[in-house]
Amino acid sequence: PIDGDRLWDNLAEMAKIGATPKGGSCRLALSDEDKAGRDLFVSWCEAAGCTVTVDRIGNIFARRAGRDPSLPPVVMGSHLDTQPTGGRFDGVFGVLAALEVVRSLNDRGVETLHPVEIAVWTNEEGSRFSPPMMGSGVVTGVFALDEILDKVAQDGARLGDELVRTGYAGEAAVDHPMHAYLEAHIEQGPVLEVEGKEIGVVTGAQGQRWYEVTVTGVEAHAGPTPMRLRRDALVAASTMVQAVQQVGLETAGDPCATVGILDVHPHSRNVIPGRVFFTVDLRHPDADTLADMDRRFRAAVAAIAERNGVSAEIADFWHFPPTPFSAELVDRVRDAAAGFGFSHRDIVSGAGHDAVYVAGKVPTAMIFIPCEDGISHNEVENIAPADGARGAAVLFEALVATAGR
Amino acid sequence: PIDGDRLWDNLAEMAKIGATPKGGSCRLALSDEDKAGRDLFVSWCEAAGCTVTVDRIGNIFARRAGRDPSLPPVVMGSHLDTQPTGGRFDGVFGVLAALEVVRSLNDRGVETLHPVEIAVWTNEEGSRFSPPMMGSGVVTGVFALDEILDKVAQDGARLGDELVRTGYAGEAAVDHPMHAYLEAHIEQGPVLEVEGKEIGVVTGAQGQRWYEVTVTGVEAHAGPTPMRLRRDALVAASTMVQAVQQVGLETAGDPCATVGILDVHPHSRNVIPGRVFFTVDLRHPDADTLADMDRRFRAAVAAIAERNGVSAEIADFWHFPPTPFSAELVDRVRDAAAGFGFSHRDIVSGAGHDAVYVAGKVPTAMIFIPCEDGISHNEVENIAPADGARGAAVLFEALVATAGR
Ligand SMILES: NC(=O)NCCC(=O)O
Ligand SMILES: NC(=O)NCCC(=O)O
Repeated sequence: PIDGDRLWDNLAEMAKIGATPKGGSCRLALSDEDKAGRDLFVSWCEAAGCTVTVDRIGNIFARRAGRDPSLPPVVMGSHLDTQPTGGRFDGVFGVLAALEVVRSLNDRGVETLHPVEIAVWTNEEGSRFSPPMMGSGVVTGVFALDEILDKVAQDGARLGDELVRTGYAGEAAVDHPMHAYLEAHIEQGPVLEVEGKEIGVVTGAQGQRWYEVTVTGVEAHAGPTPMRLRRDALVAASTMVQAVQQVGLETAGDPCATVGILDVHPHSRNVIPGRVFFTVDLRHPDADTLADMDRRFRAAVAAIAERNGVSAEIADFWHFPPTPFSAELVDRVRDAAAGFGFSHRDIVSGAGHDAVYVAGKVPTAMIFIPCEDGISHNEVENIAPADGARGAAVLFEALVATAGR
Repeated sequence: PIDGDRLWDNLAEMAKIGATPKGGSCRLALSDEDKAGRDLFVSWCEAAGCTVTVDRIGNIFARRAGRDPSLPPVVMGSHLDTQPTGGRFDGVFGVLAALEVVRSLNDRGVETLHPVEIAVWTNEEGSRFSPPMMGSGVVTGVFALDEILDKVAQDGARLGDELVRTGYAGEAAVDHPMHAYLEAHIEQGPVLEVEGKEIGVVTGAQGQRWYEVTVTGVEAHAGPTPMRLRRDALVAASTMVQAVQQVGLETAGDPCATVGILDVHPHSRNVIPGRVFFTVDLRHPDADTLADMDRRFRAAVAAIAERNGVSAEIADFWHFPPTPFSAELVDRVRDAAAGFGFSHRDIVSGAGHDAVYVAGKVPTAMIFIPCEDGISHNEVENIAPADGARGAAVLFEALVATAGR
């Protein structure tokens, strides 16, 4: 029911904004590139006859009217921001698949009972500003608007100021009404590809716990300071990185344990590091197992600090529990995939998505499509055009079934 | 023969420039603070009747005339630049002890046969611009002037431009004639303090090998990428940091092995690091042992890279072999210490110093004084005023014995 070529062309067009050397995209949240991507999206929505509103955290909602204007909209969406060396599909695919659904409704003259909307959530990636999923988090009351507006980026910019600068400090209230939410996304992992499945029916998302660890030793000269007398914060921190990896390797099920940022102080070739800051990201689909990973991680850090004569502080930075989606909406996604004869399987999302926060407020489901080699958050991220078309088709059917005719 | 209070006051005065919160100094090479420190030093030298010249790499030479102007000068000196969180004595002590010697020669009306000079060498620390010991390296032909002028700092500034900007792009040729060189310095390690010695008679410096290592893995999403499929550059690099530490711990004699800088790319909380850059600093007083450390380090990095499915490139960045000082000058330092009745011992320098490069050209010796807890390259670096006075006294005697009366 959708035009796969049109979708593919639009994905290519969007990918030109912030294009990176190895074929990826860099549109960090509320950067000039993110603004350009948003502007392009808004122009496409207006051309498709949608009414566009922006809320106070910069979320964009493009509405196609329904038969009953008093009913809350069925919302489809995702995000346009990317990682520093991100791909062309993470987030973008869900937004442009939703746009393709709206265009297809127009082309076919389909009227829905509920209004239909496309949402672009602000700062899903959590890279420039952290934590992730800010726009959806504010709309669902997970985060307080004022706190989020005051967040400061790695580059020193304040989020509220960047909203104003890029023209996306909207006026709409952040308690946006929604009837249901559907998000299409690339899997970002290898499961569908390895098993040869065309569609992933996402039953929920694994839980996540993010931390910040600061290790403090003693700075000293790298030359005349004997090995045995050192309290080297980096030697201790690198042992902790190993321990985080072990927590991942030694957990049953589908665990993840990652150190993505590590900064050394004072950052001089001939100074024994006196302080190291690093981030930790632990994930598991099972809440008890995630709690166990948390315990083992904390114990390992404390033991390594003690053994190395340094101190280590662990701060909780962000977390959400394993989050199941709406059984009814998940069934609708499964039925749509089956109706088209697409091979499919149920799957738990390894990544957080705006859908995770929205699921706390209204019935929510997600549709995954395979991505090449399971690689994401990488410039070489890729999908097959036919997989994109299949994902958008499933989104179309699930949307129409939910919005009513 | 010197005025310990005057020396101490001058040390305190200099420490005000670039003073840091915990009582240290930050005067990175050719920064505004380094310029201010140099300007203050030049004003003191002029007040002491010296003639000041600056060479093309920014080294400052303050000359007190000798009886025979045709003879090359006996040079004393060290550096005024510091580490980012450096102390108040590393380098500064040697410069201001030399100034105190000159003032004392003036006060006592002592004429020397050779002219006497105080040298301030440009960028000894090697922190903002790397490698270290640049000014002395250019004067002794270890480095080519043009290459050094083109070096770019961590902050993006070009060394030649910073010389011009700070007013220290001098006109004097860089092949400065010298009869002999004497450098007083804090030990920067714990040996003298632990053994209760007042003076270290430095017989030479241990060899150093510095490297840059780049580890390349595959960036991927920290959520849906299974632990077993990862090629995490930071997990590999942190194992390499452990291996560097082991090379240090498992070497006999007085080895040092340090990773001072480690940078993670793309530096995002939920991206498995695809690239890590780190620096390695290996040191040993014995050339064969240092060569053996080099071999074990390279083998460990290669094995860890292989095991982790990542690649690792090691680039040689800088090195100098174990460097003995002039036996005759070292004897003069020992005799001076003994003459005053100061407790003393022979010692090998764990740090590189400008004296190491100068030793390749003219007879050279160094004088060490103890520093508190052996701590250096740290804001809390400290010395006892009486130790400073003793070091300057030994410098005075060795200088007069070398410059002749
Ligand atoms: N899809 C995605 O990258 N979301 C950001 C939050 C996470 O890292 O799971
Ligand atoms: N004294 C000193 O810190 N010199 C710099 C070169 C080295 O690290 O040994």
